[in-house]
Amino acid sequence: MLGDFSYCNPTRLYFGENALDNLAGELAEYGEKVLLVYGGGSIKRTGLYDQVVSILKESGKQIFEVPGVMPNPTLEKLYEGCEAARTHNADLILAVGGGSCCDYAKAVSASAWCGEDPWEKYFERGEEVDCRVIPVGCVLTMVGTGSEMNGGAVITNRTEKLKADLEFGESVFPRFTILNPRLTFTLPRYQMVSGIYDIFNHITEQYFSGEDDNTTDYIAEGLMRSLLHSSRIALRDPEDYEARSNIMWTATWALNSLLGQGKSTDWMVHMIGQSVGAYTDATHGMTLSAVSMAYYRFLMAYGLPKFKRFAVNVWDVDPAGKTDEAIAGEGLDRMEAWMEELGVVMNLRELGVTEDMLEGIADGTFLLTGGYKILTREEVITILKASM
Amino acid sequence: MLGDFSYCNPTRLYFGENALDNLAGELAEYGEKVLLVYGGGSIKRTGLYDQVVSILKESGKQIFEVPGVMPNPTLEKLYEGCEAARTHNADLILAVGGGSCCDYAKAVSASAWCGEDPWEKYFERGEEVDCRVIPVGCVLTMVGTGSEMNGGAVITNRTEKLKADLEFGESVFPRFTILNPRLTFTLPRYQMVSGIYDIFNHITEQYFSGEDDNTTDYIAEGLMRSLLHSSRIALRDPEDYEARSNIMWTATWALNSLLGQGKSTDWMVHMIGQSVGAYTDATHGMTLSAVSMAYYRFLMAYGLPKFKRFAVNVWDVDPAGKTDEAIAGEGLDRMEAWMEELGVVMNLRELGVTEDMLEGIADGTFLLTGGYKILTREEVITILKASM
Repeated sequence: MLGDFSYCNPTRLYFGENALDNLAGELAEYGEKVLLVYGGGSIKRTGLYDQVVSILKESGKQIFEVPGVMPNPTLEKLYEGCEAARTHNADLILAVGGGSCCDYAKAVSASAWCGEDPWEKYFERGEEVDCRVIPVGCVLTMVGTGSEMNGGAVITNRTEKLKADLEFGESVFPRFTILNPRLTFTLPRYQMVSGIYDIFNHITEQYFSGEDDNTTDYIAEGLMRSLLHSSRIALRDPEDYEARSNIMWTATWALNSLLGQGKSTDWMVHMIGQSVGAYTDATHGMTLSAVSMAYYRFLMAYGLPKFKRFAVNVWDVDPAGKTDEAIAGEGLDRMEAWMEELGVVMNLRELGVTEDMLEGIADGTFLLTGGYKILTREEVITILKASM
Repeated sequence: MLGDFSYCNPTRLYFGENALDNLAGELAEYGEKVLLVYGGGSIKRTGLYDQVVSILKESGKQIFEVPGVMPNPTLEKLYEGCEAARTHNADLILAVGGGSCCDYAKAVSASAWCGEDPWEKYFERGEEVDCRVIPVGCVLTMVGTGSEMNGGAVITNRTEKLKADLEFGESVFPRFTILNPRLTFTLPRYQMVSGIYDIFNHITEQYFSGEDDNTTDYIAEGLMRSLLHSSRIALRDPEDYEARSNIMWTATWALNSLLGQGKSTDWMVHMIGQSVGAYTDATHGMTLSAVSMAYYRFLMAYGLPKFKRFAVNVWDVDPAGKTDEAIAGEGLDRMEAWMEELGVVMNLRELGVTEDMLEGIADGTFLLTGGYKILTREEVITILKASM
């Protein structure tokens, strides 16, 4: 049964090869002080940085920069951004980069004027945003996180070896996002496939929970089928615009809050993967892929009907004459084969995890309660060992 | 290939059995003069009218009423609503009823202050909304049209025997909509199944067009599968909350602009059906069902790969050893069988159409260009005859 919920997603998306043409129009809505946040040199190499700066200047903006936003933005880096936003009294934060960059912009948006330590406020005390928020806009160059149309951000606290999901809510959703699939063509293959698996896992985290026939589970199956189809084309030809555009659009809908409406969700692969990430600084999608098969093979017994449905509806497993376990298992085998085809990391060793880290990773894993089985710490250890 | 587009849907939805609890909070956002628009006596019989009026009064609102909004709102009725909205200087239009009621509220919203005849402005000259817009809120009691989360309205011009889709755009989207599946339980079966077929057709109108692998086509398949599943449960037990809630949620996503992004769409069943509606005043969904099979059997040859995909992915047709035509045809046969199971009207005679009306209906059919085949007037006649 669809539980009660409210839904509103106010982010405006501009999608397509010419999406950047809409930036100037959006900029006109905000004051002149723009905090430009981005990562390393890639947007300078591709020329995107120059394009954006030129549009900003033509729009009469004063530009203040926070470069060097890392793939897993740290709390220290967040403090730096907040300081810059306050000092320059930024009217808009413009993120140019991947999901980490969007995450970072949203974290600065909610934290610059919160008047206290954002880690304590939003993570430790789990409070809501109740301060002045600086509007955020995004120009996305990498696909996977879904950060472009939601209010979340993952921030890494290195001191505590914790990677936390902060949920800021609707006021911090990007006001607008520019989605040009062509900007993702220059990504290295490792990043592309990592992003593809991240998308897939965003869907399964919301799919493998609940006993009902929620409409969004059917939408989830459609998104997964689309992703499988397009990912295989993109593997052969990363410059296939149709495939890359569909992957980009799927990524947005995989994590813009639609799929989780009215049902419980799991998110334990992310919880384990993020704890791995806090220990290794590995690429996010690869921390998910490394633990997924062990986790889902463990979970299968607790949600057998859904794993059977997954096998038939997503992986076209023929159920005739087979037990439910055999059908469900065949679905997971096909999922594993697809992950190997993608070339994502299939074990923790490859990410630099050693046996002595496992206890710490388990300690850093938040044990959520929405899935088919609430894990114990011991079960997390078991899953981690099976992922080595 | 996904074409360029922009996407934003600002409507706030409150979904569930207790969704009406959110009305007071929303009302606080608007001034005190509320234009309450509704249809006949059904909301008075069910007690919903009293509930809403009581919430309005507790919120300190002045209530002005426009009752008697008919299933296919007429231009004359629109004039009446505009006059009332201007006279009372309404701060909010609150629609309580089905899709026609929401449509009506949006049409009044865009027309009350447009300073000229809305039919001439929005239909004949196809202009955009450039006047003061009165905010709209909806409490939905019937499912099907999707009007609760989009900017469109169907208005009937009786003098010209035309039923026209007016697209007002984002400024006229409902600011909020209350979706309580339980409110749909009291609908007569005829209205329920008519709404279910309307939803299905909204999806196929957007699905049967384009040659590509657009992600939204996969989402469309998921929505159709969900609808087939839930409709069968609702037929057996109209008070199955899970089924009715999933149908309600599917209806919203079938026509809130997501499915049509980045691709061409067809909409010819609606064009023919609406012309039938202008002649007969028949229930909207039934005008669609009456002409659908003749239309899709005609269209199949022009979009064979998509009809084949439809058969396999939506209707589980086994393609082994069959020609594409046979597979696609089997899909349409299964669709027809489902429609008969629903009990929707399968021919035009049952709606009161007579042979002498066919020329006029063809004249009133707008010939759109987004589908697999641009119809000629003669082909419309052929389809109408095959639907008799």
